[in-house]
Amino acid sequence: MDILDTQVAIIGSGPAGLLLGQLLYKAGIEHIIIERQSAEYVASRIRAGILEQITVDLLHKAGVADNLDKYGLPHDGVEILTNNQRHRIDLSQLTGGKQVVVYGQTEVTKDLMEARQQANLRSFYQAEDVQIHDYESSPYVTLVQNGHSYRINCQFIAGCDGFHGVCRASIPEDKMQTFEKVYPFGWLGVLADVPPVAPELIYVQSERGFALCSMRSNTRSRYYLQVPITDTVEQWSDEAFWEELKNRLDDDSKANLVTGPSIEKSIAPLRSFITEPMRFGKLFLAGDAAHIVPPTGAKGLNLATSDIGFLSDALIEYFQNGSNEGIDQYSARCLARVWKAERFSWWLTHLLHRFDTETEFDHRMKQAELNYVLESVAGQTTLAENYVGLPFKVDRSDLKSHVLASDKTESIHLTSSS
Amino acid sequence: MDILDTQVAIIGSGPAGLLLGQLLYKAGIEHIIIERQSAEYVASRIRAGILEQITVDLLHKAGVADNLDKYGLPHDGVEILTNNQRHRIDLSQLTGGKQVVVYGQTEVTKDLMEARQQANLRSFYQAEDVQIHDYESSPYVTLVQNGHSYRINCQFIAGCDGFHGVCRASIPEDKMQTFEKVYPFGWLGVLADVPPVAPELIYVQSERGFALCSMRSNTRSRYYLQVPITDTVEQWSDEAFWEELKNRLDDDSKANLVTGPSIEKSIAPLRSFITEPMRFGKLFLAGDAAHIVPPTGAKGLNLATSDIGFLSDALIEYFQNGSNEGIDQYSARCLARVWKAERFSWWLTHLLHRFDTETEFDHRMKQAELNYVLESVAGQTTLAENYVGLPFKVDRSDLKSHVLASDKTESIHLTSSS
Repeated sequence: MDILDTQVAIIGSGPAGLLLGQLLYKAGIEHIIIERQSAEYVASRIRAGILEQITVDLLHKAGVADNLDKYGLPHDGVEILTNNQRHRIDLSQLTGGKQVVVYGQTEVTKDLMEARQQANLRSFYQAEDVQIHDYESSPYVTLVQNGHSYRINCQFIAGCDGFHGVCRASIPEDKMQTFEKVYPFGWLGVLADVPPVAPELIYVQSERGFALCSMRSNTRSRYYLQVPITDTVEQWSDEAFWEELKNRLDDDSKANLVTGPSIEKSIAPLRSFITEPMRFGKLFLAGDAAHIVPPTGAKGLNLATSDIGFLSDALIEYFQNGSNEGIDQYSARCLARVWKAERFSWWLTHLLHRFDTETEFDHRMKQAELNYVLESVAGQTTLAENYVGLPFKVDRSDLKSHVLASDKTESIHLTSSS
Repeated sequence: MDILDTQVAIIGSGPAGLLLGQLLYKAGIEHIIIERQSAEYVASRIRAGILEQITVDLLHKAGVADNLDKYGLPHDGVEILTNNQRHRIDLSQLTGGKQVVVYGQTEVTKDLMEARQQANLRSFYQAEDVQIHDYESSPYVTLVQNGHSYRINCQFIAGCDGFHGVCRASIPEDKMQTFEKVYPFGWLGVLADVPPVAPELIYVQSERGFALCSMRSNTRSRYYLQVPITDTVEQWSDEAFWEELKNRLDDDSKANLVTGPSIEKSIAPLRSFITEPMRFGKLFLAGDAAHIVPPTGAKGLNLATSDIGFLSDALIEYFQNGSNEGIDQYSARCLARVWKAERFSWWLTHLLHRFDTETEFDHRMKQAELNYVLESVAGQTTLAENYVGLPFKVDRSDLKSHVLASDKTESIHLTSSS
């Protein structure tokens, strides 16, 4: 068995783990990334593509924003289609100039991987039997790669290994509380090299269910349909997909829609999930390892990056100044934002999707709520300010309601040697 | 049988019927009010007491606002108590100077009855076997009073006779659509001659359930507790009531609470209910006859008066100018406002009450939503603008979503002679 030493072991090489690695590297903090999959697999995963300003800022801070600046599409607004009518939410005007940037998560991952390669930072890809140990005292990670065993001693473990990862699974159930809602439908997504139907995203609420007209660039579109979770991709030919999408659009959009062969087609389930707390001794959970949002509103990647914002600050403070404050506050700071984004994602999902279980009363209440939001400037602003992302830094009062969660983490003495 | 002729027969002598009578009288339009109960019974009913500006304006227009102006308490704000902390919503600042006025519905009713008596307007109280006839063509009302039968010929019937009244019950079920939600709890209310705990209302969200600290004047308080709908008033001594109220308050309010013997104590069920359309030929439904809101947010009386605002305008337009426009638009105009107020009342009820059926996820989502609303200026504004009342006049786009409902009313030719 080879024994390695590092300051931070990062489990998972998705955008959260890669971004943390890059930010630590910039601050002169040693780390190693351990990933179950191959680099090629990680780089090819298709995910969302709407970045909040705080995500854009963090990518700049990490020095990986050249392509983003070059190819990202800043959007000042977003459209909601209901009752055969499109309503534009002027994000920029309603939030004092804020925007979102359309740039695929796949691209973010590639940019981060390239920067990592250039900096010659160490990653274990295709790591098998990854296990985390003694995270309350002297943490270390064990793994097997190409039949060879490794032990990585470290001072902290960052669990960036997603919903199905080993980190959260290693925590005894009585040490955490989880909250979950599984939605009774999925998103059937199609990627196609056709120009988008409109310059901005269109969120579609229709009697036939939700749809989303999105894009990756001016020549590549990404469309989604709400479908029963029991549907399979094989049931949906390209023709059937475009036909059903047209059924959910207004006449104008229908006329403008350019169809073409799908490059990728998949069905994603929708889930809300939250773990409290997000820190367990010297183990931190970040991103999907700690929380899942349904994709409506595109908060998943942005929540992951904001976790990493808090975590990188906390680790840098600790290693550079010997301060425990960021570490002690990590869980509460993240969760204050997480619950807000979870609420927004749940609310927008609830509002725009058709639920088989809803009564006529429920359905009309939702329609009334959507009408109100679209007609009221205050209502539009609640949508806009959440869509562009609530402030990264939260004030003290925000933290109060999460003190309990962070208190559940036993206070341990952190020393700077492992 | 005595036969009488009038222009408008008003069924029901609650605030809706009385206000309509007064407004028609001011415009020189003849009417008769028919009421099942005695005048004393009507005058003694205890109901809510928060008036929106549009209600205050209509009471002025009807010439019955002297006592309101003298004894009504204008409120610029309202408080929300959650997590043992009170948050003030500055209604006035958030809505460009709007207020609500605290003035009991019982007082409104008394003022209207007094004005009616002074004008010597005709009412049938304790009317038995009230029936409405031929509302699609030549409407008339029959009733029995003191063993004597009457027939009242009229051009229009205004159904202001509440949820259990005869008017909605006279409409064939296939001519209307109803939407309903019954809540699994009630409000235990206590009226007491003690000064209110705070100068403004306090809406209380607590782990033990909802409570409301309200008042009728500076010396008379009205308090409510969410209780299981199966509870009875007999189960609740005054002592038990005050004790449980204290359990739901923050320390400051608890210390300031003045208790005393109850003058009135009752348990009210909570219901959301909407009828579409609200006009059937020459029959109009108004107020509780057409829709019920849960009391959270105090929209019941205000919705009834806004219906009467639309209805009195429509009838005056018709009799003075021969225009059918207000009559044809009545249902759509009312319903645009009704759905918004129903949504707000449902939302606030949902947010502040504890539901036995809610999962931990649901509960925390609600807490996150409440936290968001209280922290965001836009969120606070959505609460404030609905609480003070959305605009009376709606623009065309508002009406579109309700065209269907009004289309269900068969178009009939209205003539100015009965």
